[in-house]
Amino acid sequence: MGGVQARMEAVLARVLPAAHVAPTRLHEAMRYATLEGGKRVRPLLAFAAGEITGAAPERVELAAAAVELMHAYSLVHDDLPCMDNDVLRRGKPTVHVEFDQATALLAGDALQALAFQLMAEHRLADDPATQLEMLKALAVAAGSRGMAGGQAVDLESTGKQLSLPELEFMHIHKTGALIRAAVFAGAACGARLSAESGAKLDRYAKCIGLAFQVVDDVLDAEASTATLGKTTGKDAKQGKPTYVSALGIARARAHAEALRQDAHAALDGFGEGARRLREVGDFIVRRKF
Amino acid sequence: MGGVQARMEAVLARVLPAAHVAPTRLHEAMRYATLEGGKRVRPLLAFAAGEITGAAPERVELAAAAVELMHAYSLVHDDLPCMDNDVLRRGKPTVHVEFDQATALLAGDALQALAFQLMAEHRLADDPATQLEMLKALAVAAGSRGMAGGQAVDLESTGKQLSLPELEFMHIHKTGALIRAAVFAGAACGARLSAESGAKLDRYAKCIGLAFQVVDDVLDAEASTATLGKTTGKDAKQGKPTYVSALGIARARAHAEALRQDAHAALDGFGEGARRLREVGDFIVRRKF
Repeated sequence: MGGVQARMEAVLARVLPAAHVAPTRLHEAMRYATLEGGKRVRPLLAFAAGEITGAAPERVELAAAAVELMHAYSLVHDDLPCMDNDVLRRGKPTVHVEFDQATALLAGDALQALAFQLMAEHRLADDPATQLEMLKALAVAAGSRGMAGGQAVDLESTGKQLSLPELEFMHIHKTGALIRAAVFAGAACGARLSAESGAKLDRYAKCIGLAFQVVDDVLDAEASTATLGKTTGKDAKQGKPTYVSALGIARARAHAEALRQDAHAALDGFGEGARRLREVGDFIVRRKF
Repeated sequence: MGGVQARMEAVLARVLPAAHVAPTRLHEAMRYATLEGGKRVRPLLAFAAGEITGAAPERVELAAAAVELMHAYSLVHDDLPCMDNDVLRRGKPTVHVEFDQATALLAGDALQALAFQLMAEHRLADDPATQLEMLKALAVAAGSRGMAGGQAVDLESTGKQLSLPELEFMHIHKTGALIRAAVFAGAACGARLSAESGAKLDRYAKCIGLAFQVVDDVLDAEASTATLGKTTGKDAKQGKPTYVSALGIARARAHAEALRQDAHAALDGFGEGARRLREVGDFIVRRKF
């Protein structure tokens, strides 16, 4: 896992505009928001999915960087005072605290644009039509019926108790969509999958995306701020519905484990090529941070 | 011009998610931000550029819609309290006033994603590789070395007097980049241009993009809020550098006229195919609103 993380740090440092290029403050904020941080879960998934289709790592790292830039932008905007109003992220002050709100807003906006630029300007798939599909998947994952939509549902549901299906609807959009886009993009860098194999891979991604969020909620409820490097226990304080508030910790853990097994089952038939996807799935569910 | 405006209203109404689709408040805000408003200058330019290459209107309208969604998102974010803190736009309350700040933030984010989705999911160019070029141009125009970057320079320059070259640098990014992308996209929907013709068209777009901003500054300094449907005279109040503060009204008007003539000169050699581009250029410089 460390290999992918180091590789992503290098790729992201290369594709982000240099801090000395004007407008410097904006570029500093974009780099601050993206570099030196994160588990790089989406890139791990993209690389693992690329192993199924024999994708060249030089392609996967750029597709993964696009997804990670999108993820970084979403965190910057989510932390803003009009959203979650968070001051700590990955053990550092959030972007609007370190810089200012206007710079954080623009840095997020520019990171989203850079994500699409990256996916459009390099040759990432065997044919350009497939690359347009990757771009479309990323756009849908980011938009109102993906990440931004999930965030809107999250805002509306603060202070309410959601049912398990309602919670899942929210998270399938808020975090699940981009995780699915990461898996799709990683695989699309290589040989074309049959419709059936593509559907199986997407089923894996859906299960792992949900499991990721369930584990996040459990860790938020359990862990200390020092361990996670972000403000914890705040979901409960903000009255946000979580898997822990819906199920309790023990049943939430069991739910994550069930999703992990569903994810494994979806990979039946891929054989040894999917070993890495299984490992990353296990890492996501069993992580302690 | 009215034909393009009516056509764009219909296309945008169709490609934006319906207001009754969840998350409804977000989708309402996206539609509110985009529909029933604006001069649709960028679509006018895209259609006019498409006439040079014989582009099918069914393609141009979608490329133009992508650019217009991008423009609409930038207005929503620019109006936010941490940016220009504006309450009036196109004669209506701005999105964060009509809805709330969080919804305005997410609506802008989702509009940007939808712009890229639109450009990726429909066949807009003769070959997918050209379409990837259109997407890249849109992404560069939107990003830190385009619109978002120009906005960052704008923020940094509040309260300062900029030189004419500094002002031009800011506006080439803040409004010019997206206008160039609109012209490029409209043309790219049709037959491929030679490198030389492409460069001429881009020169036209650069001149018209700057002229557009000069005229905006003149109108802001001269006109009443009732005529423009947005808060006027506020550039001066906010201490923002403008062409009027740099040159005075008479010289700013003369500068716009010179840019209009440069734009016309760039079209020499295109003949009758560029008639519409000349007309739209004249409209942009001579408009009273």
